[in-house]
Amino acid sequence: MGKLEKDKIRYSPLKKISNPLGDIWHALKSSEEEFTDFGEAYFSFVKKDKIKGWKKHKKATLNLIVPIGEIKFFVFNDKNEDKNSKLSSFTLSAENYFRLTISPGVWFAFKGLKEKNMLMNISDYPHDPTETEAIEIKDFPINLNV
Amino acid sequence: MGKLEKDKIRYSPLKKISNPLGDIWHALKSSEEEFTDFGEAYFSFVKKDKIKGWKKHKKATLNLIVPIGEIKFFVFNDKNEDKNSKLSSFTLSAENYFRLTISPGVWFAFKGLKEKNMLMNISDYPHDPTETEAIEIKDFPINLNV
Repeated sequence: MGKLEKDKIRYSPLKKISNPLGDIWHALKSSEEEFTDFGEAYFSFVKKDKIKGWKKHKKATLNLIVPIGEIKFFVFNDKNEDKNSKLSSFTLSAENYFRLTISPGVWFAFKGLKEKNMLMNISDYPHDPTETEAIEIKDFPINLNV
Repeated sequence: MGKLEKDKIRYSPLKKISNPLGDIWHALKSSEEEFTDFGEAYFSFVKKDKIKGWKKHKKATLNLIVPIGEIKFFVFNDKNEDKNSKLSSFTLSAENYFRLTISPGVWFAFKGLKEKNMLMNISDYPHDPTETEAIEIKDFPINLNV
């Protein structure tokens, strides 16, 4: 089960294994520290220049991987004491092939940068609207300037 | 834990949830009968007209989903009593959005049909070459005629 602290994020490089018939790209293993439990896996597409969010999970830890296109993630942690480090961003893509792990309590949003963008999320809770909070982009205290 | 019998396959329709910012496509939930356990998730690309396989897992159950391109899966179950039903095939794609669950003991291979083809596999065992058997396409007792 999970070893990650609440309110934390992780940004982890992932391996690609070359194969002449077609490559294998790692996503998540049960032995990795970022794996907490399996609740659901799904794909989320985000159109170019569109932003999904803001959202915060009360219980779920998300593991986000982008094998198609390019997605910029904005992460807002209002519990960080340093005001300047409350907002951070990570751009994930096939070229910059990382996994972003978002613990409960962290606000996040994400924007599609290419024509076709797809993330996979492996969450330790199945989809449950009662464990998420959502605030529309225009109403959020941080302006993304994007 | 798993409720699937050994030597069985499952072909299950998956939901797509429409969203003006980008759709959500289901893959696997812990509450579904096809979920056994989480060992590893990874992506496997297969180039057009190339075939990966044959392979058989001794312990692992695979859940295969194709969100990009189109992949034809060949499944060979030498324990079927009816000789004519030993070989079957399933074509998965974004348009024909199904999940193929392959239990331990079943031989399978898969072929890329479009320019870019990608599957996600959620396996209940992390990658372990000692729990798989492999036979090259040309040496397999079944000729795919493909």
